[in-house]
Amino acid sequence: MTTGHHIVKSYDDELKALNDTIIEMANLTEIQFESAIQALMNQDTELAYKIIKDDDRIDDLNHEVDEMTMKLLALRQPMAMDLRNVVAAIKISSDLERIADYATNMARRTVPLINEGTVIRPIHNIPRMGEAVIEMLKNVVDAYIAGDADKAVAVWHADKAVDEMYVSLFRELLTYMMEDASHITPCTHVLFIAKNIERMGDHVTNVCETVYYLVRGEPLREDRVRKTRTDRLLTDDIETKE
Amino acid sequence: MTTGHHIVKSYDDELKALNDTIIEMANLTEIQFESAIQALMNQDTELAYKIIKDDDRIDDLNHEVDEMTMKLLALRQPMAMDLRNVVAAIKISSDLERIADYATNMARRTVPLINEGTVIRPIHNIPRMGEAVIEMLKNVVDAYIAGDADKAVAVWHADKAVDEMYVSLFRELLTYMMEDASHITPCTHVLFIAKNIERMGDHVTNVCETVYYLVRGEPLREDRVRKTRTDRLLTDDIETKE
Repeated sequence: MTTGHHIVKSYDDELKALNDTIIEMANLTEIQFESAIQALMNQDTELAYKIIKDDDRIDDLNHEVDEMTMKLLALRQPMAMDLRNVVAAIKISSDLERIADYATNMARRTVPLINEGTVIRPIHNIPRMGEAVIEMLKNVVDAYIAGDADKAVAVWHADKAVDEMYVSLFRELLTYMMEDASHITPCTHVLFIAKNIERMGDHVTNVCETVYYLVRGEPLREDRVRKTRTDRLLTDDIETKE
Repeated sequence: MTTGHHIVKSYDDELKALNDTIIEMANLTEIQFESAIQALMNQDTELAYKIIKDDDRIDDLNHEVDEMTMKLLALRQPMAMDLRNVVAAIKISSDLERIADYATNMARRTVPLINEGTVIRPIHNIPRMGEAVIEMLKNVVDAYIAGDADKAVAVWHADKAVDEMYVSLFRELLTYMMEDASHITPCTHVLFIAKNIERMGDHVTNVCETVYYLVRGEPLREDRVRKTRTDRLLTDDIETKE
């Protein structure tokens, strides 16, 4: 909670400290996400418990960002780009915290999957989907650091591939459940793990929208971009659109 | 996007307009949520499509709140309680928008459930769970309007019952899927509908935390309150904790 270790001398230092905290959160979130995939695929219970424990650090950083932004807004009254930076920090930290929460939930589901001992064939599609979203996360953090709105838009569009991977995996899981009733319980865990990754991708697109607004000063309206998606099947939308 | 219909003469008017927009968003979100339960239980396809269409209005209000808060922060440089009010508006509108998104996803899943024609027995537990979260939503909006931190804490705790209802329904759905492979596809829709409602409850607890901070000026730390939940089974946590 305390931001005491950020000894700041000036307004610029405070903005830099806020920026650094966001990047630290993003890096930790990436590690949690990568570890969650690793724990699942390597059946590593110890790593799964470590992920659950380490989530506290990201929650703390999120509260730290809240405190830093309130102080900045109250005492420095930022304007224009600086103000957008502060508001962007509130939004990005909240999305990163959610992404990390989903990684934690993946770790929680890994434990009973390992204990059960059954290997669920469709699980082998999880890493590809996970790596796609980790790549999106890395790229949007780069876009944030570089102030690159075009890159943020490119990452935004990359989510379409993740949605497609999810729908395909979802169908594979349904078939696998129908083959044998003993697959149902483990498959629901894998189903929710896949859903978690799909939701993580959605949160990355939120960060894309925030970075776009931060750089351009105008919103990347969802309805403007999502028009490109209306050709998709309604059944796909059911699974990937909230 | 335009906030042109809010003709504001003063700082106080601007804060009031922001407040009114949050309450309008909350009311529309409640209606969407109630309608989603109704469409599902009454097999009302027309209502389901109306919910999907009406979600745009809530997205627009969310963008409106973003614009109003940026203007307030840039031009009015609010302090103390007013500043907390503005930051609270950013957070609450984002949670309300997510709750409305989940209502929309419920409506999307209602359509194939109706078309399939199979009545899934465990669906009858959805209204009770939904009504519990709608009640939480109404109460936290009252707490926001009244500036009642204690009420916000009470609503926060009410989410425990929703989590329990979800876990119980989850188990019932698993059993039902195992009984007959033809139940699997419709049951996954009901499973995700139940999961949506559980997540809506989590977003209401976020609003509780925001209202608490708004009124008290200090965070309702999750770890402080969630201590009361550590006695719960790990298996329950898997399903309801991200």
